[in-house]
Order: sequence, then C-alpha cells, then structure tokens
Amino acid sequence: MLGSQFGKNFRITTFGESHGKALGVVVDGMPAGLALVESTIQRDLDRRRPGTSPYATSRQEPDKAKLLSGVTKDGFTNGAPIAIVVENTDAKVADYKENERLFRPGHADFTYHRKYGLNPQPGGGRASGRETLARVAAGAVARLLLASTTRIQVLSAVRAIDKIVAQKSSFEFAEKDPLRFLDPDLAPKAHNLVKAAQEKGDSLGGVVEVQGLNVPAGWGEPVFAKMEALLGAAFFSIGAVRAVEFGAGTSLATLPGSQANDPIGPSGPMGDLHGGILGGISTGKPIVARLFVRPTPSISLRQDTVDLQGVPSKIVTHGRHDPTVAPRLAPVAEAMCLIVLADLYLERQANIALHPQIYRED
Amino acid sequence: MLGSQFGKNFRITTFGESHGKALGVVVDGMPAGLALVESTIQRDLDRRRPGTSPYATSRQEPDKAKLLSGVTKDGFTNGAPIAIVVENTDAKVADYKENERLFRPGHADFTYHRKYGLNPQPGGGRASGRETLARVAAGAVARLLLASTTRIQVLSAVRAIDKIVAQKSSFEFAEKDPLRFLDPDLAPKAHNLVKAAQEKGDSLGGVVEVQGLNVPAGWGEPVFAKMEALLGAAFFSIGAVRAVEFGAGTSLATLPGSQANDPIGPSGPMGDLHGGILGGISTGKPIVARLFVRPTPSISLRQDTVDLQGVPSKIVTHGRHDPTVAPRLAPVAEAMCLIVLADLYLERQANIALHPQIYRED
Amino acid sequence: MLGSQFGKNFRITTFGESHGKALGVVVDGMPAGLALVESTIQRDLDRRRPGTSPYATSRQEPDKAKLLSGVTKDGFTNGAPIAIVVENTDAKVADYKENERLFRPGHADFTYHRKYGLNPQPGGGRASGRETLARVAAGAVARLLLASTTRIQVLSAVRAIDKIVAQKSSFEFAEKDPLRFLDPDLAPKAHNLVKAAQEKGDSLGGVVEVQGLNVPAGWGEPVFAKMEALLGAAFFSIGAVRAVEFGAGTSLATLPGSQANDPIGPSGPMGDLHGGILGGISTGKPIVARLFVRPTPSISLRQDTVDLQGVPSKIVTHGRHDPTVAPRLAPVAEAMCLIVLADLYLERQANIALHPQIYRED
Amino acid sequence: MLGSQFGKNFRITTFGESHGKALGVVVDGMPAGLALVESTIQRDLDRRRPGTSPYATSRQEPDKAKLLSGVTKDGFTNGAPIAIVVENTDAKVADYKENERLFRPGHADFTYHRKYGLNPQPGGGRASGRETLARVAAGAVARLLLASTTRIQVLSAVRAIDKIVAQKSSFEFAEKDPLRFLDPDLAPKAHNLVKAAQEKGDSLGGVVEVQGLNVPAGWGEPVFAKMEALLGAAFFSIGAVRAVEFGAGTSLATLPGSQANDPIGPSGPMGDLHGGILGGISTGKPIVARLFVRPTPSISLRQDTVDLQGVPSKIVTHGRHDPTVAPRLAPVAEAMCLIVLADLYLERQANIALHPQIYRED
Repeated sequence: MLGSQFGKNFRITTFGESHGKALGVVVDGMPAGLALVESTIQRDLDRRRPGTSPYATSRQEPDKAKLLSGVTKDGFTNGAPIAIVVENTDAKVADYKENERLFRPGHADFTYHRKYGLNPQPGGGRASGRETLARVAAGAVARLLLASTTRIQVLSAVRAIDKIVAQKSSFEFAEKDPLRFLDPDLAPKAHNLVKAAQEKGDSLGGVVEVQGLNVPAGWGEPVFAKMEALLGAAFFSIGAVRAVEFGAGTSLATLPGSQANDPIGPSGPMGDLHGGILGGISTGKPIVARLFVRPTPSISLRQDTVDLQGVPSKIVTHGRHDPTVAPRLAPVAEAMCLIVLADLYLERQANIALHPQIYRED
Repeated sequence: MLGSQFGKNFRITTFGESHGKALGVVVDGMPAGLALVESTIQRDLDRRRPGTSPYATSRQEPDKAKLLSGVTKDGFTNGAPIAIVVENTDAKVADYKENERLFRPGHADFTYHRKYGLNPQPGGGRASGRETLARVAAGAVARLLLASTTRIQVLSAVRAIDKIVAQKSSFEFAEKDPLRFLDPDLAPKAHNLVKAAQEKGDSLGGVVEVQGLNVPAGWGEPVFAKMEALLGAAFFSIGAVRAVEFGAGTSLATLPGSQANDPIGPSGPMGDLHGGILGGISTGKPIVARLFVRPTPSISLRQDTVDLQGVPSKIVTHGRHDPTVAPRLAPVAEAMCLIVLADLYLERQANIALHPQIYRED
Repeated sequence: MLGSQFGKNFRITTFGESHGKALGVVVDGMPAGLALVESTIQRDLDRRRPGTSPYATSRQEPDKAKLLSGVTKDGFTNGAPIAIVVENTDAKVADYKENERLFRPGHADFTYHRKYGLNPQPGGGRASGRETLARVAAGAVARLLLASTTRIQVLSAVRAIDKIVAQKSSFEFAEKDPLRFLDPDLAPKAHNLVKAAQEKGDSLGGVVEVQGLNVPAGWGEPVFAKMEALLGAAFFSIGAVRAVEFGAGTSLATLPGSQANDPIGPSGPMGDLHGGILGGISTGKPIVARLFVRPTPSISLRQDTVDLQGVPSKIVTHGRHDPTVAPRLAPVAEAMCLIVLADLYLERQANIALHPQIYRED
Repeated sequence: MLGSQFGKNFRITTFGESHGKALGVVVDGMPAGLALVESTIQRDLDRRRPGTSPYATSRQEPDKAKLLSGVTKDGFTNGAPIAIVVENTDAKVADYKENERLFRPGHADFTYHRKYGLNPQPGGGRASGRETLARVAAGAVARLLLASTTRIQVLSAVRAIDKIVAQKSSFEFAEKDPLRFLDPDLAPKAHNLVKAAQEKGDSLGGVVEVQGLNVPAGWGEPVFAKMEALLGAAFFSIGAVRAVEFGAGTSLATLPGSQANDPIGPSGPMGDLHGGILGGISTGKPIVARLFVRPTPSISLRQDTVDLQGVPSKIVTHGRHDPTVAPRLAPVAEAMCLIVLADLYLERQANIALHPQIYRED
C-alpha cells in the first residue's frame, strides 16, 4: 500500500518518526506561480503545536518548518515538488525506555511488531501522533492553492468532549479556546471534565467537526472516488478516529425516507441532511463531517499487557500525553480536508475547459 | 480521480449504467492457477439479486455473469485480467420518462447535471444502485483468492432497521431472512416496520454490519493506508452509507481512556473495542465495521424539487424501489471488504518472504 | 504491476486472450458530452485488421466493436467508463494444438510458464498480438477527445522494411499501401523483399514512425514523467518493439554538441533534432518517434526448442502469421501515442486555468 | 502526471533544484529489518560525483547524504519511508546570471517557460542534471534490498563515445576509468577525442550500457508493464537519453526472423538477442540495455536563441559543464535499473507464495 502517500493530483508523501532526526512531507502537484514562504506553513504548524494548551503534552518542540525545494529564489512556487522538513529537537527517548519491552494497550506497538518485527519504538515511532505535523504542513500548501483560486474555506473545531455536545457553533470562539470547543456557553463544563480526567490520570474522547464552505457544486467523482470515500479515507487515516459521519450521518439510519431528503430549489438541495454531497459529488452546500475520536490511549493508570516474550505484565504509560486528543486532532482533520479539496480542484479543471457553459457559477 | 477503479494490488474497474446495454467489471491482479468458473460468481450475484425478497424492487433481471477473459480453457485463472459482464435485460426506460426533466431529491441527478451537464438519466444511470452488481462480482473473485490461500471469512448482515437494533448475532438466520436481520427474535418487529413503511410509500434506514474473521495480525499499512482508511473509503463508496464505525466506534467518543483500551494478552489485544485494528494494522481479532444506511431516497410521496430550468415542481419517484436498502447493501459491503482484504493479502506476501520467522502464525 | 492498465487521467484497462471469448477495454477519464458511436471505434479497428493485406495472417475476424457503457441513449459520452468489447469468432485452437507442449522461440511461452505456471496457450493467450486490438479501440476514443478539443493529429507509417529505408514521407501513400510504407518510390522494393521472405517461410523487421502534429508547447512533466518516458513506456509495451528513438535519436550519440542543438527562434526551437520535446516537455514542433520492430518470431522454418519437460525438440510454428509485423504495428503505436496525448491533455487543463495569460497560444 | 514519483511497490519521490537549498528523495516500500546507514548511500553518491574526473564540471559539492527517517536507532530499516537529503553548498548563482533572460538551446528553459511561466532558472532548476543525485541515493537503497534477498547485480558503463565503440566489456576497467569506458584498448582513443572536444569548447555523445545479472526468470508483467516498458520509462526519464534499445535492439529491424530468435534450451532461451526479456518477462539471461546519450547541450560556442521577449540573440553557456555526460549518466541509469528491479522483486513475492513449486529456482 505504501501507506505514506495520499492524493492523486495534489499528492503528499510524508516521512519521519517521533524520535528520529526529522519529520517532513513532499507535496507534488502544486501549480507554479503562487507566493509560498515558510511563514505560510508555520502559521498552520503553530495551530497544531503542543504547549499552546494546559492540556497538551509537555513535549516542547519549536516545530520550525524548513522549505527545501519547490520555490524560486523570489518565493514563488515553480511547479516542482515542495519539500518541507521539521527537525525533532526535544525527543526524550528516556521517557520511553522502560516500554521498549512492553506493548502499550490501545497503541500500535503490538501490530507493528507483528507486521515489521519491530520492538516498541520510542514514542510510537512512525505511529506517533507527531506524524500528523507533516499533514498540517501539507494542508497549509493546499490552503494556499484553494485560497488563490477559489472562495473555499475549511474550518474545524471540537463538537463534543465526552458527553458534552456543543449546541452552538462559534468557530471564532473555538479558535481561541484551548479545547477548540464550539460552544462558548458549554465550554466551561467541558474544561472541568477534562481537568478532572487529567487529575485522575485518565483521558477523554470527543467529536471533531470539519466544514468546507463555498465548495462549488460538481466536485468529486462517482462510484469509488465519491467525496465521502476520499474524505472518509482521509479522516480514518488519523490515528484516533473510530467513526466518521457526513451530514445528518448516523441519525439518517433512524429517519424515514420522507424526512431524509433535502428538497431541491433552483440552486440545488436546500438543507443540511446530505452534508453537501449527493452521489459522491458536491451540491454547493457546506460539506459537513464529524469524526468520533477515542480517548488518548496513553493513561497514567495501570493496564494489563504482555512483554515481547508474551509474559503478562502491568504497564503505566508515562511520557507526555494530552488528556484528550480531540482539540489537537481538529487542525489535522482540517488539513486532510484541505488536501482532498486541493486534489479535487485540480481534477476539476479538465472538465471546466471542455464545458465552460455548464460551470459558469464555479 | 477516475472514480471507477478501486484497489492497488487487486484492482477492480467497473463500468455500466442502470439502463445501458450491460454492467461489468475487470479484475486485475488475481494470481494464476485458481479454479474460477461462472457459477462461482453467480452464487454471489444471486445473493444480491432483487426479487428474492418481498421488499425488493420488482425489476426482474436474471443478472447472469459472463466470464469473458482471464481463465484458461480448463477453467483456471491465468494471471490476466478477468472481465465479467452482466447484460441488462429488464431496463424499463418508460418508468423514468417523466423524470427526465426533474431532479429527484436525495439522488445524484442534480450533482451529475452540475458535473457532467447531463439531464437526469433513466434509473440514475451510473449512479444507480445497480452499479454495485459489478462490485459483488469482483467480491466473488476476491473471496476465491482468500479462500484458496487463507482461513479468512467475511460475513455481512443487517444490525438495525430504523430503531430496532439486533441484540443477537445469527449470521445463519440473517442469510435466510429477507431483511438479512441478525436477531431472529426481533426480526418480526423489523419486518412489520418495513411493511408499514412500504404501505405508506415511505422508506427506512438501517445499519449493516460486516465482520472479517481469521484475518491474521499484521495486515494493513500505517499512516494513510490504515485498514480503517481503506475500508472506510470502500464503505463510503457505497451510495447510501452516511456513517461508518469500527469496533466500539462512536461510543468510544464518550468512554474514558481507562475503559477504551483492550488489554493485551500473549496473542494480542483481548476484547472487541478496537474492531480488530490498531494503528491501522490488523490485530488478529475479528475486524468489525458498521455502516449507517440512509433510507431509500425514492419514495412514493410528493417531494419538492425543480426542473432543468430551475422552476419549482413536485415529484413522485415511481419506478421500482426497495422500502429499505440495508438488506441489499449488505452483500455489497461484504464484497468491498473482501476486495480490500484480497488487496492486503497480495501486499502482505512481500514481507512474509523477507521475515518468515516473524510470520509463523499467519 | 497489474500490467493491463495504462494512463493516469485517461486510463485504459484491457482484457482478453487470443483464443478466449472476447477482448476489450475499459476507458476511464473521458469527459462527458462528446458524440461517440460504435462506428467511431470501428473505423480505427478496421485500419488494424488482418486480411486487408496480402501479407497479413489469414485469420479472418470481423473485429466488431460493441460499446457497452459510457454513452447516453443519444450517443454522447456521459463521463463514465466506456467499455468496448470485441468477440473472438475465428479462434482456430486446432492450429496451435501441437505447440501446447513446446515453447516457441522468440515468444512469451517460456516466460509465461515460468511466471504463471501456464503451458503454452493457443495463439499466445494474453501475449498474442491480438491484444493490441483493445489499444486501437481505446486510441479511437483518445482521438475523439483530441480532435474535439485541440488541433492535434497523430500519424503513423512504416519508415523502413529491413534495410530499405524510406527517403520520402508520404503518409497519404502509406495509408493505402499494404505495407504502410512511407516512400512511394521505394515501396516496390520493399514489397518484393517481403514477398521473398514470405516465400521462404521467413520474416522481416522494420521501423515504424509516429508523428504528433500541432501538439502545443508546454505539455508533459519533468523528471520521471517526461514525454519521452511516457511514450517510451507506451511504445515498449508493444510486443515486437526492441528499440525506440526520439527526434535525431541514436544519431545524436555520434554528433558533436555544436551540431546537436536546435537553435531557438521567437516561437521556440527551430529544427527537428529534439523530436519536439525538450526537458520532457513539448516544444510546439512535431513530436517524432521511431520504433524498431523485430521480425515476426513465428516462422515456417525449423527451430530448436524444448518441451515442457525440458527435452530438446524441433518446432515449426504453423498458424497464421504475417511476414512482417511493422505495417500492422503502426496503428497500434499511433493509438498508444493518442492515449498518451489524451492523458496529457487532461493533465494540462489545471495549469491553463491558473495562468491563462501564459497559455494564450495553446 | 506528478512527474517526480517513480515506482509502484518500491516508490521514490524526488525533490530539489540545482541551486535551491537541498535535493533529496523519499523511498517508500522498503521492507523492515535491513541494515541501512548513511555510508551505504554515500558510496553510490560518490560514484556519481563530479570532480572525480578531469572532464567533469568543476562544481565541487561534497554531496553528503543525510538519512532523516526510516531507520531504527540501531540502524535497521523500520518499514517506514526513508528520507535522504543532500544540501547544496556550491551553488554559484552568478554563473547563470546573464542567462536569466535567454533560453539556452538544447535545454529545458524554453519549455519550462511555456509550461510554468518561469524565467530560465539558475543551473536549470529542477531540470538540472543535479536532480539525478536523488535517483542514485534511491538506487543505493534498492541495491541493498536486492543484495539482501537475491543474487542480482546491476552494472553500468560506457559502451561508446561518439563513434568509438567498445569491442571488449571490462566493467572492472570501466569502474576505474574517468570515462567509464568498457574497452581498455580503445580507451585512450576515447580520451583523446573527449579532450579535443573539450579544448574546442564542444561536447560529445555516447552510449551507456546497463546489465542486470542473475535476474530470475519470470519477473515483469505482460502488456503495459513489460520489463522493457518499465526500464524504457526509467531510462528515457534521464535527461540526455534520446534512444533506448534492449538486447540486439535496433539491429533486429534488419535481421530476418530466422536469425532473430534465440533457440530455447532446458533452462530457457540461449543467446542474447532478446536482452533477457521475452513477452515483457525476464528469461533468466542477463538483462541488457543500451542508452543513446546526446552530447552535453551546454557548450562554450556561440548559439542562436531568443530572449524572454522573443528578440533574437546569441548565447554562450558559461558555467561548469562536462564535455560528455555519458560517464556520469551511467551510475544514474544503473540506479534506475536497480529501482525497477526492486519494484519487481516486491511484486514477485505474492505469486511465489501461491505457487512455490514453480519458483524453485528463483
């Protein structure tokens, strides 16, 4: 599968381990002539950084993006692959020392051992959440492409922390909230819940919502490359995501057909049941997806496991871990959505040229 | 995107419209030397057929598989692409005549018009559920590969119809039940509900469950090709699926970390929270996924829409439609899972040869 | 590798064996709205047919194209995969009977046995030249796309038969000549040579030339997807091709640099040394390639070989074979060039939309 | 096309410009558990370096490989992408200053301008021969895989400089010769010729030969992924290559069929006419390919060109250039062959597992 590549027209290749020398990404497919500097990427990396929140891991990395290729000396993309590298500087291998012979529950240690013959790697190696840094860097490049050529905006925030579900949707509030929570009124309750879990050494799950605004109608492909299939793959490729829904999602399984169709007006479906997608193709309404995120598997409580020889043992996963990963996962989900839309933007051009009369509103 | 292809090592290319001459699939990547005859494929096609259920569309097609290539005259695969064609014989274009100028709510008519400039096609054209026939044919070939080389079994059934959720899991019962319902005790309730909806001209949603048994530990790839990402794309590529979950799925968003990890024993994770996958790689436990299926969008009740010129209108979608698509979607989801696993089987071989000592249990 | 697929944006998947039920191709990526009927495809298939020449194999097949999908009932492409099937009707398995236990020299029998475990297949099975029929059908679809959207023309003919090299280039003459020879004056010599070889039961090689006219400057990609790399793969995928050159080709290895560069004028390179490509990207001058074709490996003379058990034996390859394959290979090479250019056409659109000012002349 | 990626199972993604910060490659698909350190890569990079020959460009770069990911702390591959970066340290942009408004004949300046809207880039930017450094680094990784799992050896050298064609084949001699010439007796003549061209400010072409030894029979795929098609694409993706042949190559176009087939013995074809490939699949004999290399386009003689506004002008391409690129192209061609074979090795495993009895000799 060569699992480290994603996309067809806007294709990213990521690399790097949690405690290796560096992580990075090569972005191929970016058109020439767009102004791209390191700060464009840094802005998005900073939104993902740990240490900006009281709940985030105490690992302190500057996460500085270095742009190695793909730009002219004047700072414009040249159509060639854009390589971005971020060095690891605060990789405390010691924290993980004792775990090198124990498989951490809820982590990839066991399956990586069975697939690759590897002992548990410091910080999870390639399976670390730190891998998502490369996606966010690539997402910044995708955002530049979309911002230069369309009116598309992609937003992300936390819709729910454990059983507290946001009833309002203020992305503005969420952007400043350490939990990225959508509802200013319920946010204090969510914060209290997270603090309580943190104090117990436990962790919490949540729901991340991603919205794609101003996506023109007619993007996406039928059958296997439906927009939900592309976004579904994109979102399920993020470690802690255990379920994904679009539009009215799971609730559509319990609605009758007479309440499950958005009626159609002159500019397309009216309503949000379909999540902006019909038959795999965008309707022109906002794309809405929700990602159900499991609680952080690393907790400070004792759990049952085995060692490399299969001998039963107890493990406490020290190290630096967030009590809930949902807030930090939101910018990653946003990045994956940007990458999918950038891919579809490039896809879309061929047909526009053929049938300009159809696409007048794009 | 070229939406009609799926898979990397075991790759399928489907074609055909609801009311065209034929539908079919080309399967590439099947190893040579396996006994493949038309009846192997027909068996799976028959499980998907309408007309085997009181609830299914009254369209009566024999759906006979013709095997055009990829086998020797003795009936063994020869390593070349396997082309399977099914002719359309009962394509009643008349039923759809009046709809050629109206966009059906909940259907792809509007988005296909915006993408391709097409008027609504009879039966939805390429967006018809009939397209899934090609997937089921390809799934039968994937099943043959897995059955010849592994102990893997893939099962599918209906976990829920509207709000009636199966509490038992009898795949044996489901195989004979027209609703493919998993729980023999609750099945009568489900049947009554469907009949009531059908009489009202309405439709119902449901949940399909797919299980992959005896999948060895160590299959799948990290990062973007996680098993959930591949299966997620596979399942979301099926028209009516609006949400997908793995293992404990959505419920993990509301569990604390201390209850969300399966403890690890000598042969891997014990429990079903992870759905048989950790870090995107199989654990050796059953793969479990659930697909949330919207109600059939075609209903006999009047709905608001517009015509090709954008003039508001009312539409009643005549034609032949199931009151719930979940039962017929199950074999399709099963086929997609088989295709993903066949792909991963082929992927897996390279590493086994390199590290035979690791893979002794595969 | 899944060897039966080619192309990225305009992607073809071929299937079928020499003596199976049918051969065919699925073309994915064709835009919607172009008029496509069976006769569009038939015209190109007829140019490739055996039986139109005194030198061609006596196998008499009508080679009728059946269009199974991808078109509306009004005969326009609908953006979905286009499946084309040609049935085998004159598959005389008897001719090949005795060869089922002997490996034919110069054929794929031995390597297919080693790769797939197959005994020699009637007519070579998937390795038969008959497989190219599917390419020509796909090439006709590519030609339709290019003709509808550009001024591109692709021509092919025979530049040399054995040591007789055409000094003139009349594609008009070639189109009517059974040898597709480019030079009307030297054609009689070429014909005599072929007849003499045929009488002796021997065969001859030759050189096929392909020209792409009116290809705008700026098509193709750098590094691995250079136009030469794509065309090189396309041409080397045709069975009998043993060398490929572009522009001045092999002769550039023996020219000094001062004679090997086309000078540049206001509209680009002037001259034909580069074959219309620089840095992998089209210059706006004609694309010129030459394919060196080995003589037909099937000859009526006794050759040394072994049987399935490795016992030395003699073989005479009966059956129906051309004394030279170059003339019939020309339309196949032309089709492959059309397919590559159709792919690049679709690729090209994305950038045009971004930088319309650059591409004013396209 | 996303031109900077190559391979399917062993996939490389290259990046970097001649005068940017760095060049590099990400290698995905390498199995876990193989010992890989920077010196493994450095050895191959050093073979490609300029400055090791009196004829090579005077650009003096250390070309030090930095391994950023894909290895454990103990120096074993971990199955994750291997990122290798080489910094540019001797990028004298000044040399290229005056050419920023003139298109160099025989270079990609004009076509990059037409495709990307770019002015001529220092040193050719992405089109520089320096890009091949990333291929050689990836080739070193491929070599490690093949050396660890097979007996395959890939060799490269210069078969001809201008009209001087090596009659002997001493790869041992070539490895030490600054021209990498295969024939010790004719080498002095070749050296004199190159020196004479260099003194005149002119350049010469040549022929590079690549051999793949001990490639087992049965590798490669039929139809579009024939071994010649893969190698053809690989070789034509190298800038200066204008023709490619396999086995007896171009000469087969002028041989009768009775002299163009290798007879078959118990272990396969005997002879070298087919270049080790039949029907696109390896025969077990050495793979032999020859690449016809044009003379370096940068010469110190005045050539006609135009500036960015299309005004005719004269250009002398200063800078640092080799009088013949063939010797430095040989390790690049070797690397591309290694990469193709590594890809096919991984491809091959799936079938071996299915049919172990067939592949006993592999």
